[in-house]
Amino acid sequence: MTESNKPSLEVCLSPALLNLFDVKNSIVVIIDVLRATSTICTALYNGATRVIPVSSVEECVNIGRAIGGITAGERDGKIAEGLVHGNSPFEYPREFVEGKTLVLTTTNGTKLLHMAKDAVQIVTGSFPNISAVCDYLVAQQQNVILGCAAWKDRVNIEDTLFAGAVVSRIRQHFDVNCDSAIAAESLYQMAREDIYSFMKQASHYKRLANYGLEKDIEYCLTPDGANVLPVFRNGELVAAE
Amino acid sequence: MTESNKPSLEVCLSPALLNLFDVKNSIVVIIDVLRATSTICTALYNGATRVIPVSSVEECVNIGRAIGGITAGERDGKIAEGLVHGNSPFEYPREFVEGKTLVLTTTNGTKLLHMAKDAVQIVTGSFPNISAVCDYLVAQQQNVILGCAAWKDRVNIEDTLFAGAVVSRIRQHFDVNCDSAIAAESLYQMAREDIYSFMKQASHYKRLANYGLEKDIEYCLTPDGANVLPVFRNGELVAAE
Repeated sequence: MTESNKPSLEVCLSPALLNLFDVKNSIVVIIDVLRATSTICTALYNGATRVIPVSSVEECVNIGRAIGGITAGERDGKIAEGLVHGNSPFEYPREFVEGKTLVLTTTNGTKLLHMAKDAVQIVTGSFPNISAVCDYLVAQQQNVILGCAAWKDRVNIEDTLFAGAVVSRIRQHFDVNCDSAIAAESLYQMAREDIYSFMKQASHYKRLANYGLEKDIEYCLTPDGANVLPVFRNGELVAAE
Repeated sequence: MTESNKPSLEVCLSPALLNLFDVKNSIVVIIDVLRATSTICTALYNGATRVIPVSSVEECVNIGRAIGGITAGERDGKIAEGLVHGNSPFEYPREFVEGKTLVLTTTNGTKLLHMAKDAVQIVTGSFPNISAVCDYLVAQQQNVILGCAAWKDRVNIEDTLFAGAVVSRIRQHFDVNCDSAIAAESLYQMAREDIYSFMKQASHYKRLANYGLEKDIEYCLTPDGANVLPVFRNGELVAAE
């Protein structure tokens, strides 16, 4: 708690900066908008029992085989060799994913998740579940770190924009004394009228658009399409009750 | 050089991220707006022969004694024990500094400078010398990294704003494929009408305002008050011819 008697709300723009934050005394929101955390909430929203995030393709294959889960993950925009599904939220409709376990390998998001393992609680956030994330954070009355997964440690626009959107929604409940939070919120305020157009400048947009994934990007930037809260417990993400 | 045949222009928001950039093939601009790089260009503009940036107070005292230089530096907003002057640009008018050597100890800026030592060239930038910096960068036709000194590795608003101001001025001469550069430029575009008011949200503003340094802040955010280009050579900063 800070002097104002409100909990703090901070934004960490890259996993390489997480060591500067007091993770142990905070809730950490893992943000990997394109597309890991958007796909995670979508799968859970559509009835997946749990999502197990893993770092490597090998781990994904082994765990998937052991528990009979759906193995998913991409490298360079294609389904990784040995896996069966990709990173797109559209691959996980209810008729496919309900009652199943998704074993998902991502690079940036999973790395950050493991770095944040000592947090009070880890949840994942993205535009499709922004309201669930904000409601949860306001209710907890604890310090919050919005952790951007970034791209190989480089700050990216989409995760920063989502962090800024959260700051703009919930800041009155928190003490915001963090320049990254102020910068992220300003960026979001500037972009909010047309986030999709703004994103066209971003490096990740160009990568994904080259793979024909504009529809994915649009979904991943739209609020509340899959409004559940993924909570990390015992190595897996489950939808909060 | 990139595919567009223009050199690249990137922004590094914190020294902790500098390892992600190709320093060896770039000009690095060291940015420590409040107040190290503003004071450096001011001292050189007012006729100082050179500025020697050092990390520690001890080093500052020893070098200052050895060469008969002005020793300067602050810790927590006060002149550091053993030194004679502070970090304020207003302490270095022509009648005081002309023909002299300033030995300046700063923490964030000096750290970044040493990290960037393998760069093609190191120069320092801040609003008081923004035009000199931009003219130089456009003329060189080389890759550029705008390196924010930040605050103990945490991203800060003032250095990000300056980086964004440079991007907005010179981007047509460069290939800008860097989300941090796009975010910094957007932040600057949002703040440009009244940078001083925007800065009132920043954590560093609050620290300095507590010490009564609003006048310093205003000077440090105003373009071209001391329009020379400090270039780093053999351990010291001198004004470019």
